[in-house]
Amino acid sequence: MDALIDQVRNRHKRAIAQLMTRVENDSTLARYAIRALYGETGQAHILGITGPPGSGKSTLVNEIAKELRCQEFTVGIIAVDPSSPFSGGALLGDRVRMRDLAGDDGVFIRSMASRGSLGGLARTTSDLVKILDAAGFDLVLIETVGAGQAEVDIAGAAHTTLVVEAPGMGDEIQTIKAGILEIADILVVNKADRPGSDRTVKALKVMLQMGIELDRTIHHGQMMQVESGETKSPGYTKTWKVPVIDTVATEGKKVKDLVKSIISHKQYLLQSGNWFEREKARSLQELDQLLRMEIVARLQTLVSVEEREKLIEAVASRQIDPYSAVDQLISKVEEVENKRG
Amino acid sequence: MDALIDQVRNRHKRAIAQLMTRVENDSTLARYAIRALYGETGQAHILGITGPPGSGKSTLVNEIAKELRCQEFTVGIIAVDPSSPFSGGALLGDRVRMRDLAGDDGVFIRSMASRGSLGGLARTTSDLVKILDAAGFDLVLIETVGAGQAEVDIAGAAHTTLVVEAPGMGDEIQTIKAGILEIADILVVNKADRPGSDRTVKALKVMLQMGIELDRTIHHGQMMQVESGETKSPGYTKTWKVPVIDTVATEGKKVKDLVKSIISHKQYLLQSGNWFEREKARSLQELDQLLRMEIVARLQTLVSVEEREKLIEAVASRQIDPYSAVDQLISKVEEVENKRG
Repeated sequence: MDALIDQVRNRHKRAIAQLMTRVENDSTLARYAIRALYGETGQAHILGITGPPGSGKSTLVNEIAKELRCQEFTVGIIAVDPSSPFSGGALLGDRVRMRDLAGDDGVFIRSMASRGSLGGLARTTSDLVKILDAAGFDLVLIETVGAGQAEVDIAGAAHTTLVVEAPGMGDEIQTIKAGILEIADILVVNKADRPGSDRTVKALKVMLQMGIELDRTIHHGQMMQVESGETKSPGYTKTWKVPVIDTVATEGKKVKDLVKSIISHKQYLLQSGNWFEREKARSLQELDQLLRMEIVARLQTLVSVEEREKLIEAVASRQIDPYSAVDQLISKVEEVENKRG
Repeated sequence: MDALIDQVRNRHKRAIAQLMTRVENDSTLARYAIRALYGETGQAHILGITGPPGSGKSTLVNEIAKELRCQEFTVGIIAVDPSSPFSGGALLGDRVRMRDLAGDDGVFIRSMASRGSLGGLARTTSDLVKILDAAGFDLVLIETVGAGQAEVDIAGAAHTTLVVEAPGMGDEIQTIKAGILEIADILVVNKADRPGSDRTVKALKVMLQMGIELDRTIHHGQMMQVESGETKSPGYTKTWKVPVIDTVATEGKKVKDLVKSIISHKQYLLQSGNWFEREKARSLQELDQLLRMEIVARLQTLVSVEEREKLIEAVASRQIDPYSAVDQLISKVEEVENKRG
């Protein structure tokens, strides 16, 4: 194991893949490996790329990676795909597209096809990111499908979040309803050669403007706190204006501009002091996830499957309400712990 | 409070709205109200309606409700909208559309605009469903935006899940990638007057076929278990064939067929014994959610904000790895508990 970890430090691709598989399948091993590597993490620029199906995310990720390689950055890619069992993970099209990157020693691609629980998926993703970070990749790209809470959480683990839209994916106003603007550092309207692209770009810009107005009000509140003696990091929206970039990933159009924005955002984070703020937010999220998993695991060892099963049946048949059932479970755990203590 | 709960039992609309607001804002009150009402729940047929933005879900929900009213069913609607702060909840279009239902005493509509945490949202939704159930609504419709994990969780709280698609929302194969087929009891291709509708219906049917093949294999395994003496509920796919229905909600087209399928699915669940299986699955999910919330709340009372903050900074600056940090937190909690005990 230690030998494997050493090979990972030297960016040995087969070792990275092996370690990832073991970390995915064995939480004890994950714990050991992350403990060993954690001190060497914190260097990589972590990018979250999210957006609805059909927006051309995979192609875009591919083009971003190519452009980053041209600029001599090394790139790790994690495609989080909580997909149906039918697809069995990566689709043929994606695989063909990524083939030209796969032979490159400065690129590592990993697809997470397994669904698993929400917490589990975010957890594993975060461990895989750390492995790539410790292996010395300059950037780590996390591609997620959709714009649900899972994706928001995973994006929350990134320094820079790209939200990808495509024109004509339904009323613009509906898209905004999904609440993705809040998490975007950079907005991309991909497939910009399609009709309706200008309209989508304009709608997003208007919405951003509204958002900035809103944030300014909040920011003003924070300023007040600063004046009253509290130390607060400078307002986020004051210095970073979320750009809207219209790309055509299949032709590589505007991808250079996009990569420029990505690198600018990193510089902005570092200069404004927001980099460490994001690191803290990431750590908080991670601690919360780990804590919940840890506690639930402990609970499962303290309450037997039969007891749980009985309680579930009682709730389902309305013999007991769920709140009282949880009280019962918790007092049972406390009982066991008190006997131990 | 007890008077309010009594009014809810009599399906007093203003009382229902009041109780919902109080349950949303106060978890102690929520606990009290649900305990009082839980015994009277379990009668409503709970429908989850999910799908990507732009698929016309809201219009469809509206039409389904109208058709159900024609058949003299009472209908409660909960629109779960983890939306951006910009939109401030329900959009004008939705509100106008639902106005013709709002005056009807057999209909209750509630929009949940607040984002909140994932667990919190699912939690509150589940409490609101119970209130409508106890108030005696025959059906409760839960509309969710998108097809992320949050939506899958909320759909998991339903007896019958409708997945709504629209033609031309990107490659069909991409849509399936999002893994929504797994949760669908009924598939709807809405906006079926748009070009590409037939292609979408066909693609979904092919995918379902593949899924059914897959499930049959699993089912066969279960049959073996039954023969070897274990009692298992009959295989799900054997008796329920997921229909694909092409609607034009704006014109009310095929909505009658859809409602027929919805009612058939309830009959199927009841006759096959799967109704209670779903109740058990719902109870399990609910217990898990409550348990996690309860435990995290307890933890927060045992570990001070300062201690947490310090630990987060230590993780963010790589002084300690997250796994070790969680170990520290847990041992601190155990210490406090042992002193108490």
